Amino acid sequence: MNKKAILLVGDGVSVTDLRYASGFSAPDDFLFMQSGTRKCCAVSALEYNRAVTSALPGVEVRRTHSSHLETVKTIAADWGVDTLTVPGSFPVGLAEKLKGAGFTIEIAEQPLYPEREFKKISEVQKIIVSLRAAEAGCRRAIEVLKESDIAPDRTLVWGNAPLTSEILRAEVDCTMLRLGMIAVDTICAGGLQGAQPHNTGSGVLLADYPVVLDIFPRSAATGYWGDLTRTVVKGTPSDFMRRAYDAVLEAREFAKSCIKIGAIPSEIHKCAENILAKHGFSTGCDEKGDYGFFHGLGHGVGLDIHEGPRLSPRNSEPLKAGVVVTDEPGLYYPDQGGIRLEDMIYLNDEGKAVTLTEMEDQFVI
Amino acid sequence: MNKKAILLVGDGVSVTDLRYASGFSAPDDFLFMQSGTRKCCAVSALEYNRAVTSALPGVEVRRTHSSHLETVKTIAADWGVDTLTVPGSFPVGLAEKLKGAGFTIEIAEQPLYPEREFKKISEVQKIIVSLRAAEAGCRRAIEVLKESDIAPDRTLVWGNAPLTSEILRAEVDCTMLRLGMIAVDTICAGGLQGAQPHNTGSGVLLADYPVVLDIFPRSAATGYWGDLTRTVVKGTPSDFMRRAYDAVLEAREFAKSCIKIGAIPSEIHKCAENILAKHGFSTGCDEKGDYGFFHGLGHGVGLDIHEGPRLSPRNSEPLKAGVVVTDEPGLYYPDQGGIRLEDMIYLNDEGKAVTLTEMEDQFVI
Repeated sequence: MNKKAILLVGDGVSVTDLRYASGFSAPDDFLFMQSGTRKCCAVSALEYNRAVTSALPGVEVRRTHSSHLETVKTIAADWGVDTLTVPGSFPVGLAEKLKGAGFTIEIAEQPLYPEREFKKISEVQKIIVSLRAAEAGCRRAIEVLKESDIAPDRTLVWGNAPLTSEILRAEVDCTMLRLGMIAVDTICAGGLQGAQPHNTGSGVLLADYPVVLDIFPRSAATGYWGDLTRTVVKGTPSDFMRRAYDAVLEAREFAKSCIKIGAIPSEIHKCAENILAKHGFSTGCDEKGDYGFFHGLGHGVGLDIHEGPRLSPRNSEPLKAGVVVTDEPGLYYPDQGGIRLEDMIYLNDEGKAVTLTEMEDQFVI
Repeated sequence: MNKKAILLVGDGVSVTDLRYASGFSAPDDFLFMQSGTRKCCAVSALEYNRAVTSALPGVEVRRTHSSHLETVKTIAADWGVDTLTVPGSFPVGLAEKLKGAGFTIEIAEQPLYPEREFKKISEVQKIIVSLRAAEAGCRRAIEVLKESDIAPDRTLVWGNAPLTSEILRAEVDCTMLRLGMIAVDTICAGGLQGAQPHNTGSGVLLADYPVVLDIFPRSAATGYWGDLTRTVVKGTPSDFMRRAYDAVLEAREFAKSCIKIGAIPSEIHKCAENILAKHGFSTGCDEKGDYGFFHGLGHGVGLDIHEGPRLSPRNSEPLKAGVVVTDEPGLYYPDQGGIRLEDMIYLNDEGKAVTLTEMEDQFVI
């Protein structure tokens, strides 16, 4: 006998295939198995009723046994399965126990649900809901920056108190929270912090420097993400940063026009890089660190904030219809700050690249 | 040669040992190795500067190579290590690649950092900061419930709109967010939803029924959690729920008095159960599901919201000084609703059980 089943274990937030395959998500570990068209989700007694309500049609819901091992053994015995296909992220401890119980474990080299890259209309709609929340958060940030005053030392002041990245982030996140979103690590990075793409920002914000607003909420209800970046300045930006902004905006728009069925992601990335270079913005590394455009142009978005397809220099797989990707060129200079502008694009079945983002572009506010 | 090193891989939120051991956390995967007193953290170029700043003294920070496999090979070669001890949750894909490269992989049966259960004063202080934020969130919920009116159909109305669990949760979470917290899955469950301990609550809230407020924020800065539950009623609770509240309150306080060095967690749980039974509240399961007190009395809290020691019927390991645990008995009846009251207790080095929670107890508001 050599009958296979896919096996997934984890919580629905960190192992998003679980949510995709079962329709169910829980903060605690649960289990999913699939053999051909047979699908089964095993959850704790505490989650059973909720799982029955939210599981996709055709997914049987069971209660877990005393351990994951026992649960898998029971389902596998019912189905006559002896080989389990697991993702590379599957916990090694459970894998070893399953081997000890006589199962053959196969580690999938490729995504178990490659169809996740190609969104159904219902999924695109869920992404749009999260993106609209990101836009509401971004508008709130800009509103607060507009309301703030510039102190003589060029720091920003909002309602009699210094305006910090932390306060601005709380305003953005609260706006999104009230729209049913979960927001973690929202970036509101000003001054030279904006030159580090992952710096979420801390401390008092400054006039005249760009503030990078990278906002990526996940819907608590659906699990789908939105992703948006705008960069704004309160006050008077340097000529260098003005030119950088214009270059990034042109790169984003040109890259957008390159997104079509059959286009090669690495070439789209290269196009954006070329526009930036044409404007005199080169990429490299010196004693102060990386500078220029040193991350990938974009990435797929769905139940994971970063998923395929990557619009990166290393992806040569032609684009297909159905993908939802970000288009987010940036320029970063350790002694000047950073600029990033990010839209989301849906490549629909007719091969048209639809910009999902509605947020306006404005640098000086 | 048989020289061992601990190996951890993941992001600092889901693999909290990474944060504990290195002092650093990142939303993307990074790597930590420890062999005796040698400790090394390997992060992407994007995170390098931040890692250098936040890593604990004695932790060397390196840049990751093209893959985790290559990074591990380089560090292991430098250290002369050929055996890697990994947690059971370690990804099987990387474990297999490491085996293929000649490493022996040992899966730890026990926690790699058992000292995590025993908090340093600095850790207790971080937990208290998060707990105070939870209390601020809880007070905000009670304020909103107090401000709300009861419509003729006994639904709650706040500022001209129906008061839903979602709106109440947003008020709680926004309060905590402004205090630097991350809050996910905050429970504001009213009506019969409160009878399901994991139900976060949805829809319009009702007068006369208990609303379970289970609030557990994590500090964005430190990663430590707070955990608090209060149950309140707007309007007039049933006599049954009034008696249930009193029983749960007595059980919580009695259990608290049992927390001491050498006490057996399963016996403390049993004490709480006995108090509830003495008041006539039994535990069981019928056609409507579980009822009574059907979860563990409490759990340790630190960089994980649920960690050791468990105050559960299955833990017979005597308590030691330094633990921070929750004490959270509850009563749940599918046709009546739920009551849960949760404090946090620190068993200090003098063997004194210190209640960290300052939030008052009040049922009818």
